Amino acid sequence: MPLSTKPYKGARDFYPEDKRLQKYIFNRLRQAVELYGYEEYDTPILEPLEIFASKTCEEIVKEQTYLFEDRAGRKVVIRPEMTPSVSRLVAGRRQELAYPLRWYSIPNLWRYERPQKGRLREHWQLNVDIFGVADTSAEVEMMLLVNSIFQTFNAKPDMFDIRINSRQLTNYLLEDYLGLNQKTANMIGKLIDKLHKLERTEFINKLDEALNDKQRAAGVPEKLLALLEVKSLKSLPAEVQAQAAVADIESVLVSLGKAGISNARFDITLMRGFDYYTGIVFEVYDTNPENNRSMLGGGRYDGLVGLFGAEAVPTVGFGWGDVTLANFLELHHLTPDLKSETEISLVLAGLPAEAGQQIADNLRSQGINTAVDISGRKLGDQIKSAAKKGHTYVLVAGEDELKNQRFNLKNLVDGQEKQLSVGELVKKFRS
Amino acid sequence: MPLSTKPYKGARDFYPEDKRLQKYIFNRLRQAVELYGYEEYDTPILEPLEIFASKTCEEIVKEQTYLFEDRAGRKVVIRPEMTPSVSRLVAGRRQELAYPLRWYSIPNLWRYERPQKGRLREHWQLNVDIFGVADTSAEVEMMLLVNSIFQTFNAKPDMFDIRINSRQLTNYLLEDYLGLNQKTANMIGKLIDKLHKLERTEFINKLDEALNDKQRAAGVPEKLLALLEVKSLKSLPAEVQAQAAVADIESVLVSLGKAGISNARFDITLMRGFDYYTGIVFEVYDTNPENNRSMLGGGRYDGLVGLFGAEAVPTVGFGWGDVTLANFLELHHLTPDLKSETEISLVLAGLPAEAGQQIADNLRSQGINTAVDISGRKLGDQIKSAAKKGHTYVLVAGEDELKNQRFNLKNLVDGQEKQLSVGELVKKFRS
Repeated sequence: MPLSTKPYKGARDFYPEDKRLQKYIFNRLRQAVELYGYEEYDTPILEPLEIFASKTCEEIVKEQTYLFEDRAGRKVVIRPEMTPSVSRLVAGRRQELAYPLRWYSIPNLWRYERPQKGRLREHWQLNVDIFGVADTSAEVEMMLLVNSIFQTFNAKPDMFDIRINSRQLTNYLLEDYLGLNQKTANMIGKLIDKLHKLERTEFINKLDEALNDKQRAAGVPEKLLALLEVKSLKSLPAEVQAQAAVADIESVLVSLGKAGISNARFDITLMRGFDYYTGIVFEVYDTNPENNRSMLGGGRYDGLVGLFGAEAVPTVGFGWGDVTLANFLELHHLTPDLKSETEISLVLAGLPAEAGQQIADNLRSQGINTAVDISGRKLGDQIKSAAKKGHTYVLVAGEDELKNQRFNLKNLVDGQEKQLSVGELVKKFRS
Repeated sequence: MPLSTKPYKGARDFYPEDKRLQKYIFNRLRQAVELYGYEEYDTPILEPLEIFASKTCEEIVKEQTYLFEDRAGRKVVIRPEMTPSVSRLVAGRRQELAYPLRWYSIPNLWRYERPQKGRLREHWQLNVDIFGVADTSAEVEMMLLVNSIFQTFNAKPDMFDIRINSRQLTNYLLEDYLGLNQKTANMIGKLIDKLHKLERTEFINKLDEALNDKQRAAGVPEKLLALLEVKSLKSLPAEVQAQAAVADIESVLVSLGKAGISNARFDITLMRGFDYYTGIVFEVYDTNPENNRSMLGGGRYDGLVGLFGAEAVPTVGFGWGDVTLANFLELHHLTPDLKSETEISLVLAGLPAEAGQQIADNLRSQGINTAVDISGRKLGDQIKSAAKKGHTYVLVAGEDELKNQRFNLKNLVDGQEKQLSVGELVKKFRS
């Protein structure tokens, strides 16, 4: 039986037209983050299980990792996220590195999930982190940067909104304000994370189940439901407003406002899945109703570098998946029409491959990307091939053209033809 | 106990200075192969075991793959090489694709090996393939391209040599000329592959072991040893010279000579490990005695696309590892001095982060990569940080500078300082 031509389930093959789009997106991302002084790093796709076991979300580690034993019995994981790896790198050179440290990466990540729109088993993710800044100017920079990346792709502010919350505030609300113990608070946190995916009655039932009689009698469900309706910091109960976490969120929103960013707001329902967040968390949503989902998310995680035996480093970072970004661009008609990198398809009218390579080399030495058809087929078939590949220009060369050093350049899109010398070709393509 | 900061054995972390070198190498490779009309594709790092089981070298599949079962019991492999995957892609769109098809990729590959110089468990590899050309003009193009890539890195012809053989010729020599059955021929082929790693007596002993009495009596060992001494096609026995495979090698060498490439030669001992080769094979060696090893290799494999149920497609390709390439560049002093992408480190003399971001934004909007020190530390510490990061230019901004809109630009390398406006800065950095 022949082998299957399909890629592994939930992963993508990138034919050249797909790869071209991916490269366009990655190049824009690189440009945008390097503009803010971020430098690229990378790590191996395999990591020891331990680095994910302690602080990544339990659901991901237990149910969604590609976990196996290598030939020496080491438990290894194909990385499901990048944050533990980058923390490992920083911890490894804690003393030699200079702060604020600005790093980014675009790794591929693997999660064993049921493939669905916007979620695949293999995806790439822009990871941006700033290390060594304890106050909210780090969070502000992250959001300025996110905003700037959207601009890079020609997105308008009404196409996305930035939602901000604080893990500290959430902990305070659940544990202090509502008086839940840590375990229950955790459970309720996970439940709020699913709020927008559940029917309201289902949410209320699950909330009820998670609480005990005493908590129900104390009105915890009603209090929580009321809190979840809060749309601005000013509507929070006075004792909550007095919390430092609220001042942090306020300060970020004010700074963003001064920088002209008005599509950011407080969202009390925003949880983020990972266990390692310690302060402000944020997500950016597509405002298009057809794709009203989180595109990227991040927050402050001050404790992760410390797990690797180094002194703790205050850190803020975010991750932005390529699938959600590509969906966003497509839905908002921001995907450009990308042409093949090949500028000239040289077709040979009776000339041997050697002569073709020589002509092509004259063009290549001037930086013109030139493919030669060395198949020896009929001229018509060669031109058809170039058209099928989406190449715009075909250059025809035969004995006469070679003798006169003038070649026939045909534009396959508009049908125009011109006789040009190599010098004229170079001028045309390099100007 | 704290978690280890080391990467997984045999794999590399890329701190920004390492990543910068990798990006330099990959960008040069991309430029060079796109100049020949090759287009980039990619595939998932996980593939079903089957696609490697049939034609990849048995040693690699049995002993060196990262093989495991996914959560649904599928046997999957982290790709040890790219050739089966690219064949899968071509087979999947055999009819829609236009030939000659020129494709390349720079995937990361995994092999469970004992890490040593030039060999790691994770490495990247430039893979270049041309599909749809049955004659040796395809092999010639591959070697023109390889030569051109070396030029891209400023390598001189005396730094490397190109060695050419033919799998067809090897098969003819072992099976017809020496009269061995396929199994013995295979074994002897693997032994010749190790020729340069074994002592001569060890090689002779192993050869002796692999043959039976009749073969020994017929003088097979002596005949083979004599063949392995042959340095040119003309020194081959007359009946061997009459083979089409010899004419193929001759034709490639002649074409390369015409194109001015004189560091290519016939090498009867060249085997290549993979089972899928069907014609010419080649490798390129570093001529430096300290690194006298194969840097890249490839050949013709006409049968692989056909395994995926599609009509067979004649194919020639090669793979070039990043570790051997980086070693080559270093040894020949061809590694450039690469600077940080960050052009300006903006340090703040008492200004708040917000004001710093605003100044930086004026520069960023003109395309100047600008990092702001938002740590709030003393000026001296901020400048030290910039120097530690290897940044060349520091721009100082305080209340006075902000008011006068003239900033102090300090070159940390030569110590020069200048007072410049944003307009003057843009002129300086963008000219």
